[in-house]
Amino acid sequence: MRQELLVLVLVILAALYRIVDNYGWTHSIYNHISYRTADGGFLVNPFGLLYSEVTPESLVKLDGNGAVLDNGSTEFSFSQAAFVLHAAIHDVRKDARCLIHTHTLAGGAVAASRHGLRVVGQEAAIVGPISYHDYTGILIDPEKERCALQASFQPPSMALILRNHGLMAAGRSAGEALHYMFNLVHACEVSVAACAAAGGNIDDLCEIDDSTVASVHATASGGGGGVTTTTGPPPPVGSLEFDAAVRSLDLPWDVPIQRQSDSL
Amino acid sequence: MRQELLVLVLVILAALYRIVDNYGWTHSIYNHISYRTADGGFLVNPFGLLYSEVTPESLVKLDGNGAVLDNGSTEFSFSQAAFVLHAAIHDVRKDARCLIHTHTLAGGAVAASRHGLRVVGQEAAIVGPISYHDYTGILIDPEKERCALQASFQPPSMALILRNHGLMAAGRSAGEALHYMFNLVHACEVSVAACAAAGGNIDDLCEIDDSTVASVHATASGGGGGVTTTTGPPPPVGSLEFDAAVRSLDLPWDVPIQRQSDSL
Amino acid sequence: MRQELLVLVLVILAALYRIVDNYGWTHSIYNHISYRTADGGFLVNPFGLLYSEVTPESLVKLDGNGAVLDNGSTEFSFSQAAFVLHAAIHDVRKDARCLIHTHTLAGGAVAASRHGLRVVGQEAAIVGPISYHDYTGILIDPEKERCALQASFQPPSMALILRNHGLMAAGRSAGEALHYMFNLVHACEVSVAACAAAGGNIDDLCEIDDSTVASVHATASGGGGGVTTTTGPPPPVGSLEFDAAVRSLDLPWDVPIQRQSDSL
Amino acid sequence: MRQELLVLVLVILAALYRIVDNYGWTHSIYNHISYRTADGGFLVNPFGLLYSEVTPESLVKLDGNGAVLDNGSTEFSFSQAAFVLHAAIHDVRKDARCLIHTHTLAGGAVAASRHGLRVVGQEAAIVGPISYHDYTGILIDPEKERCALQASFQPPSMALILRNHGLMAAGRSAGEALHYMFNLVHACEVSVAACAAAGGNIDDLCEIDDSTVASVHATASGGGGGVTTTTGPPPPVGSLEFDAAVRSLDLPWDVPIQRQSDSL
Repeated sequence: MRQELLVLVLVILAALYRIVDNYGWTHSIYNHISYRTADGGFLVNPFGLLYSEVTPESLVKLDGNGAVLDNGSTEFSFSQAAFVLHAAIHDVRKDARCLIHTHTLAGGAVAASRHGLRVVGQEAAIVGPISYHDYTGILIDPEKERCALQASFQPPSMALILRNHGLMAAGRSAGEALHYMFNLVHACEVSVAACAAAGGNIDDLCEIDDSTVASVHATASGGGGGVTTTTGPPPPVGSLEFDAAVRSLDLPWDVPIQRQSDSL
Repeated sequence: MRQELLVLVLVILAALYRIVDNYGWTHSIYNHISYRTADGGFLVNPFGLLYSEVTPESLVKLDGNGAVLDNGSTEFSFSQAAFVLHAAIHDVRKDARCLIHTHTLAGGAVAASRHGLRVVGQEAAIVGPISYHDYTGILIDPEKERCALQASFQPPSMALILRNHGLMAAGRSAGEALHYMFNLVHACEVSVAACAAAGGNIDDLCEIDDSTVASVHATASGGGGGVTTTTGPPPPVGSLEFDAAVRSLDLPWDVPIQRQSDSL
Repeated sequence: MRQELLVLVLVILAALYRIVDNYGWTHSIYNHISYRTADGGFLVNPFGLLYSEVTPESLVKLDGNGAVLDNGSTEFSFSQAAFVLHAAIHDVRKDARCLIHTHTLAGGAVAASRHGLRVVGQEAAIVGPISYHDYTGILIDPEKERCALQASFQPPSMALILRNHGLMAAGRSAGEALHYMFNLVHACEVSVAACAAAGGNIDDLCEIDDSTVASVHATASGGGGGVTTTTGPPPPVGSLEFDAAVRSLDLPWDVPIQRQSDSL
Repeated sequence: MRQELLVLVLVILAALYRIVDNYGWTHSIYNHISYRTADGGFLVNPFGLLYSEVTPESLVKLDGNGAVLDNGSTEFSFSQAAFVLHAAIHDVRKDARCLIHTHTLAGGAVAASRHGLRVVGQEAAIVGPISYHDYTGILIDPEKERCALQASFQPPSMALILRNHGLMAAGRSAGEALHYMFNLVHACEVSVAACAAAGGNIDDLCEIDDSTVASVHATASGGGGGVTTTTGPPPPVGSLEFDAAVRSLDLPWDVPIQRQSDSL
């Protein structure tokens, strides 16, 4: 990977940590967001920093076997769970570069339900096909988890619900991964609140039919939020949203707008 | 539309975006608030700015067919969904000038319920007649949606629940639209929480009877929050509330108080 | 009422508005907190200010018939609903000086339930006897509401649930009213969340038996949070809490500590 | 206890009050966190300060009988409930030094349920064995409560649910107690939301089986979040998390990092 591209990925990925922090999707020092580099390795947070503390310099670079290629600027190491989860997915999902893992409250509630996500709001339809992965414990053993994770999270699904655990979203870019996590987080919140509103009568829920879900997902996956009216090709999926979130943060480092940098 | 009036609408509408942001009713760069101008067009946000970034200069002016009359100060375009939704309603609801569309959590939960809003709190009664619109996907096709939207949202209803999607409120002024959205947002929250509190026994809910709803709605629709004791005519609906919300924001532009500007 | 005492009440009552605002129990410009003065009138907020804007100078003084004795420093009037609700209660509850009315979310949910508050947490037991008042519309007609309100809210109850509407708490002082509202707000939140946690099986709730409620209420009503270990008489109910809340606000006016001022 | 060690405990315990405040787990001036000293006494907050006001100098030192060894820098006394609860546990749990007691909303909801915590998320499994204590009123009588509390909270459980009341977590260090409270708070939130999401069909919940819980608890109890990849012994349980939380506070006093100070 050329040095300039690596710098670009570092500043974008660190910005994504700050965006996720700003949305309140953090959980102390836990969870992880990764970005796969051209050499098959990936960048991830050092285990010990809050998301609000992550900087481009502090990111750790691992290869696909968990060897540290660059430990970044901190004395922290990385999380074994980050390696097990992200390496497994990056190894097979070459259609994605960026993976976001969160422990939001409603995400945890949906992950605790056998039925899973209720597709009752537009955000759920935007996410499209949802994958599920059963829980077998903390993700520390790559031999035990690798194949199962890879089997659970197949294209074209960009969203994975880790049962009894949390959420994962994938994207070709930081913006696209943010797009899927944003909609998944909100879809889970609506799902839980809608079930509460149904007052014990689940038949009261208006579930969106499959063909409408497919149509909504196709529209939203076309870029520009599915509703842009710009002439020419629409901005890449999630790029308008990523750029706006970056502007709201006033970061101490420059982040190029995603419309240009999406081809990394 | 005279230039001075347009400037007035621009500063009021931009203030409304900031108020809605301050209430936390935003959803990344999505959603839209519009204000119909005397020539049949309407002003709306550029698609790409956060509500916290909207200024009077940045607003986009569209005509009723979606042609851009003034793109405002940004390089962004507008949202097709904003056009489809708002143009359809502005075309027929000449009793309203301002439309607010939100994706709040409880609004999404109520929108996912066949029963819809439970009229169990004063805020729901203040809103009065509620309209519903069934979901058929992202609002990108005016031909497909226009007539259905117009049929769904008829006077005297000032509040529309877009199933599987979100909320819309209308008003003769920014303040009145804010009044209906404020009460609708809270009515949805109380509805969801009351269903949770009922613990699976929906018969435990105290629903407000229709004649009381009519009386409460009439009182609140009389202006001045329905409870002002000023001598002379009461302040227009929502104007005291809009003015207070503006004061809490410390905006970098002047907003005339709504008691005077309501006749736009 | 001597001038020095009135000044004392004004600074304390305005501080209470700011405390309630800081707790997030506000609802735009609505709701009201009142303090009865020795002459049978009471002080209340001007209708049009946010709680965050209320100052000692801005408070309105009404007599028991709703005549304005002092309109305060603003050009706003007062809310008719404030007069109807507070005058009715002040007229008969001579054991109370201060009344707080709120529209919190969980309060609204409990107020929508026929069963009412589930006494499943310590906060509910601290509140002790709860009164209920049925909804008949916005409180604008004193003739219609006065007797019914007075009948609903009898000693020794210090907490009133206004069905389909909201909450009211009473106290001999600002601190005591805050004590009852604080515990009532939290009791309602626990009640709603406990019903959700019961998952449709209300028999799963551990309700606190009546004799334990009586004992807890008696302990907490003894002052000093029921658990002070100071020698000598305990601080008046809610005074430690009120003083702490005032310190957290950094108000632009001085508020004497409630331990001394409780005898107003 | 040597003076230097006492100073160390004071700065760490005061920092823990601020961390708990920052997480929003506070309840006016109520609740308490204690740290047992080598002489069998313990340090606790003065009753009257908010957690945001606690400093190392303000902490009160009690002996095991409730005698004040050092009243700290304030004129407040201590809470009798703090003494009854904490002295009882410190007396028998020599495997713990630090106890945190909270009244979080979801904690209160789970404490109101006969079934108790639903082990449906990873956080619940991390906590491991949960103890329960039945409610008999405000904790003011040590004779009545002492033996029952001691019987309720036995090793190896590090988490106690006080029915109809709130939560308690224990730890060998401030960081470990924070670890258990953090996971218990989130486990309760997921439990309540999952029950709401189940929509009245509790069989929809995916409960984690006992052997997986045991394995997850063992992993997390090994230190370093259970997932550290540092060479050498892992950081003590909760120390990475405590240190990060301290950094986020910008305290006016120095707090040594917990990796070194854990052996107090």
